[in-house]
Amino acid sequence: MEDAVSKCGISIDSIGDAQRERNNAAAYLELHIEQGPVLESMGLPLAAVLGTKGVERHAITFHGQEAHSGSTPMRSRRDALAAAAKLALEIRTIATKHPDAVCTIGSLKTFPGIVTAVVGRCEATLDQRDLDPGVLATMYREAQERSTQFAQEEGCTVEWSRIWNIAPEPFHPALIDLCEEAIRETTGLSHLMPSGPLHDAAEVSRSGIPTVMLFVQSLKGISHNKIEDTREDHLHLAISAFDKLATKTIDWILAS
Amino acid sequence: MEDAVSKCGISIDSIGDAQRERNNAAAYLELHIEQGPVLESMGLPLAAVLGTKGVERHAITFHGQEAHSGSTPMRSRRDALAAAAKLALEIRTIATKHPDAVCTIGSLKTFPGIVTAVVGRCEATLDQRDLDPGVLATMYREAQERSTQFAQEEGCTVEWSRIWNIAPEPFHPALIDLCEEAIRETTGLSHLMPSGPLHDAAEVSRSGIPTVMLFVQSLKGISHNKIEDTREDHLHLAISAFDKLATKTIDWILAS
Repeated sequence: MEDAVSKCGISIDSIGDAQRERNNAAAYLELHIEQGPVLESMGLPLAAVLGTKGVERHAITFHGQEAHSGSTPMRSRRDALAAAAKLALEIRTIATKHPDAVCTIGSLKTFPGIVTAVVGRCEATLDQRDLDPGVLATMYREAQERSTQFAQEEGCTVEWSRIWNIAPEPFHPALIDLCEEAIRETTGLSHLMPSGPLHDAAEVSRSGIPTVMLFVQSLKGISHNKIEDTREDHLHLAISAFDKLATKTIDWILAS
Repeated sequence: MEDAVSKCGISIDSIGDAQRERNNAAAYLELHIEQGPVLESMGLPLAAVLGTKGVERHAITFHGQEAHSGSTPMRSRRDALAAAAKLALEIRTIATKHPDAVCTIGSLKTFPGIVTAVVGRCEATLDQRDLDPGVLATMYREAQERSTQFAQEEGCTVEWSRIWNIAPEPFHPALIDLCEEAIRETTGLSHLMPSGPLHDAAEVSRSGIPTVMLFVQSLKGISHNKIEDTREDHLHLAISAFDKLATKTIDWILAS
């Protein structure tokens, strides 16, 4: 990679020098598709984004006892899949206590993973997100507690290992207000929502530059997929609102 | 394979001729480790086997909607893993209505199977076994009905595809009695149980030869594994009971 970027005239060693450009950045605005189904379900084209949710991302492994599916009575089993299945359902209860929180088990792997053996080991991934760090911490603690309970109920043990985590990044309050104004002036209705997906804007905001994002509706909530799409009239509204937001932001910078 | 067996003097084409040997087979007796934990949990060394359980073995696929784990609210999800998790727990209820039945989901695969996506497709295998064909049919029907219900609850669809199935094979009643007698004379206590695992004896029995099996206790219920083991005193008891069974069977053949 170093060779490849050096051919484009970039030196990795001096990449930190780029931060001097930050002094010239008075604000950062980002227009993005929602990548989710919320605006479509509400019949709204646009939203001002409150910030990006924090993420707790963990690998969870349940250890039970691999056993012959024919010879092992139900009451003698230590089925690692059963413990994981309970957790896969429980994370929904944990998430839905909070209005915007999400919890996802996206991958579940069974070992030995054959039709004739009770699952001896089950590996799951957990992804939890919320804009409120307190909610995020509560959901993480609850998932740990319940996984331990389910492991005990099934005669299994459970291990957690952090894959990655990031704190919530709330956007700049004054810019959120300007974004709402710009949307209201464009469509008559404004809406505020957090972003579940992470965005470049979160890193820019974290570096201290006042930041906000504007979301435009996605069709069917599909993203990272070739059928990802947005209505053309919504794109026009988005450009128009974003232009108003840029003008308002420039005025805000000049006034501050 | 044909070349390899022909080097041993066996012709695949004439393999069916071997059935003429069946006319000389008056009975078939098989001594086997239990491969399960039942005898150990009961403190018994030996059991007479009632027959081999029938098996229903199916691939079950739940189809939901792959979606971004950050942007898709809990209420908007069509999570194929959630439907499969419900089934993984429900099969235990289905099995435990019957004293000796077993139901196992040994493999569960998630697609796309990444930490940041709601599971769009979940593939499971189901293995159901019982000695009673009526119980087997009921369990199969119940698993199908509940999988359809769970798919509907989660906004998913479900597809079933048979991997393999085999009918229960009850052993010969007179030989089961002789096997019990031989065990009682050897250890003072007899026990009757079905075999969850399949055995060569099942195919011999199905061909019309009177058949029974004698099980000897397995340690920790472990089989198909290098720690598979049986106590030496139990092996002695097994040989002794099997010898008595052979003598009784020869007498039974001569008397019939």
